[in-house]
Amino acid sequence: MVNVLILQCGGPTPVVNASLAAAIAACQTHRAVGQIWGARLGLQGLVQGDWVELTGLPATALERLSRQPGAALGSGRYRLREEELPAAFAHLAKRRIGVLLLLGGNGTMAAAHRLERHGVASGYKVDGQPLRVVGIPKTVDNDLAGTEVAPGYGSAARFIAQTVRDISLDLYAMRNFDDVAVLEVMGRHAGWLAAAAALARSHPDDAPHLILVPERPLDEEAFLTAVAAVHRRHGICLVVAAEGLRDSAGQFLAEKFQKAEVDASGQRMLGLAAGVAPYLAHLVRSRLGLLCRQQRPDTIQRSCRALAHETDRQLAVLVGRAGVEAALAGVSGHMVGLRHTPGGWETAPVPFAQVVGQERLLPASFLAADTYDLAPPFYDYTNTIGLSVEREYVAF
Amino acid sequence: MVNVLILQCGGPTPVVNASLAAAIAACQTHRAVGQIWGARLGLQGLVQGDWVELTGLPATALERLSRQPGAALGSGRYRLREEELPAAFAHLAKRRIGVLLLLGGNGTMAAAHRLERHGVASGYKVDGQPLRVVGIPKTVDNDLAGTEVAPGYGSAARFIAQTVRDISLDLYAMRNFDDVAVLEVMGRHAGWLAAAAALARSHPDDAPHLILVPERPLDEEAFLTAVAAVHRRHGICLVVAAEGLRDSAGQFLAEKFQKAEVDASGQRMLGLAAGVAPYLAHLVRSRLGLLCRQQRPDTIQRSCRALAHETDRQLAVLVGRAGVEAALAGVSGHMVGLRHTPGGWETAPVPFAQVVGQERLLPASFLAADTYDLAPPFYDYTNTIGLSVEREYVAF
Repeated sequence: MVNVLILQCGGPTPVVNASLAAAIAACQTHRAVGQIWGARLGLQGLVQGDWVELTGLPATALERLSRQPGAALGSGRYRLREEELPAAFAHLAKRRIGVLLLLGGNGTMAAAHRLERHGVASGYKVDGQPLRVVGIPKTVDNDLAGTEVAPGYGSAARFIAQTVRDISLDLYAMRNFDDVAVLEVMGRHAGWLAAAAALARSHPDDAPHLILVPERPLDEEAFLTAVAAVHRRHGICLVVAAEGLRDSAGQFLAEKFQKAEVDASGQRMLGLAAGVAPYLAHLVRSRLGLLCRQQRPDTIQRSCRALAHETDRQLAVLVGRAGVEAALAGVSGHMVGLRHTPGGWETAPVPFAQVVGQERLLPASFLAADTYDLAPPFYDYTNTIGLSVEREYVAF
Repeated sequence: MVNVLILQCGGPTPVVNASLAAAIAACQTHRAVGQIWGARLGLQGLVQGDWVELTGLPATALERLSRQPGAALGSGRYRLREEELPAAFAHLAKRRIGVLLLLGGNGTMAAAHRLERHGVASGYKVDGQPLRVVGIPKTVDNDLAGTEVAPGYGSAARFIAQTVRDISLDLYAMRNFDDVAVLEVMGRHAGWLAAAAALARSHPDDAPHLILVPERPLDEEAFLTAVAAVHRRHGICLVVAAEGLRDSAGQFLAEKFQKAEVDASGQRMLGLAAGVAPYLAHLVRSRLGLLCRQQRPDTIQRSCRALAHETDRQLAVLVGRAGVEAALAGVSGHMVGLRHTPGGWETAPVPFAQVVGQERLLPASFLAADTYDLAPPFYDYTNTIGLSVEREYVAF
């Protein structure tokens, strides 16, 4: 019998609880598993021993959990210090944990890697077995190496695409009043979420008209010229901008009004800064004289239950279950990666060393050469995750 | 035979196209109706004669239209000048329009009233019949007099309540990182939309923790004390603030950073100003030292197709159809009002004079006396429109 501890770390997604529910269910049905535990608030609960037992969680709760936004165990951005590792392992030993599952993104996989190495180095054993540490991918940003898609991305991407379709109908209806709108979406370094806006179109002239990704520094003059041209042609211009957009000099646009604060890990908190949308709106208003609305959904894009994507949820279930199966089969030091095959999506363990320290940006081939737009390979990619958006509309 | 012209005016709602589709369908099936026309961009299209014929619009298009956000004819905030009335009536006469239907809110009903009086005063007649002008209510703000609820409100209210439920699960999951969130919602003078956030709760301690409505000027010191107290108790504090919130001195909080511009009608464009959420976030950060996220969905709240509310859509259909029936029965100078009866919702024509110049604010009895919250009569009210929110969740 082996006891299992599960953690949720980093920003929630609409489907990270689906992975959690699937992992719990897989543990419950596996005869090798004894107790199932969850740590509250991710790594913080691991270090502090603040755990909740999940062994007997009823099927009704699992079903509800699987469709619930947020991260039900509590997640967060706790920074694991080296000197806290012994305390964490003392808690693991006390409850005789043999399998540690971490649901998370880049930062989480780095922590998982450290935990795995500490377990090996310290000779941690339960019933003669070493600790098996397995990562389960989760991030709306889709910037995680080692997996072709990260569960969470599909739902946030669908939210963004459907939102662009919806608000563009509103903007077009108000074209004798409003001129431009800037929708600010998440994405510090990677433009996957901004790119998803392209799926809103049913005709080439449809919104979004300009998609601004962090992979492409923004020349502000060229941008203003493009906005003016789109507005002249369509009477409106809908811009989608990633929060991590930088100007040609490498400065975050979000910080051009006011410097962002840094969090405990030294990362700039762009979502809490003045923001890229207010900056671009000011630019459009002051330089072009056009009215410019802003939409800043912030955490709505990563928690909207109504637009959670079913394929995304199924992938979240798949990796949750595969993480348990891999660990119980003896795998450790790996993350469950997703690979698209002609037969559908499959999982395969990927060593932490191939995941940690990487950041999967939009490939250059996914971006159109001269326009603020995507290229055909991006649509081939999104076809693999079957993103569905209600695009059709009646126009007069 | 009578020809009908339909206009959509003012900010779109998720269901104003449902009213339009219902009105078209009612005209199509009524043997007294000849041609059916729509004016593009509301009053602008009326004045300029920019119309589109809707007579033969197929049922498939009507069905699609009835679930489409935005305002498919084009809407806007065109300000009808007195000297433009003759041109508008020349267009009406040219196409022998006997029935004029205007879908809109407060400003639209004022314009409808002027058009009706001009028709009478100028002796406009088609086949010996005067012009019949009927208003069909539409506004997410729910501030329209003469109707107990305005179609559009239910869908935007559901968006806000469900969004609060969703983002509060996210905020709570991140409570070792994030502290406070401010969701900015529409509502220049009336707090109906902010109030709807209260429907997110399944337990009294659930978010939203503070609801700030324009009907109650905000004492900033008392607000900060309340935020700190909620945060101490729950580890988070979720605030919902109406865009039109004012401080004790009567100043818009949205303008405390930067003055808002005014539109053609002299109204302050608060949605385009620095905004109430950035101001409150700055206050919380600088005075309490707490991290504060902001969500500014802006037009997402009035166009989100996925959260359009079925009861709201049915009310939109009801008033669209009733507007046609009233006009064809000879009613003019009235808006279709909605009244809740023991048997359900009914329509009744209300004279423009009883609608125009009014603004239906939240009754004082709907607001809790000493807290930033709603009182029981508000829930009795929302029960009449059957707002459904997925509130239940699993907590550990």
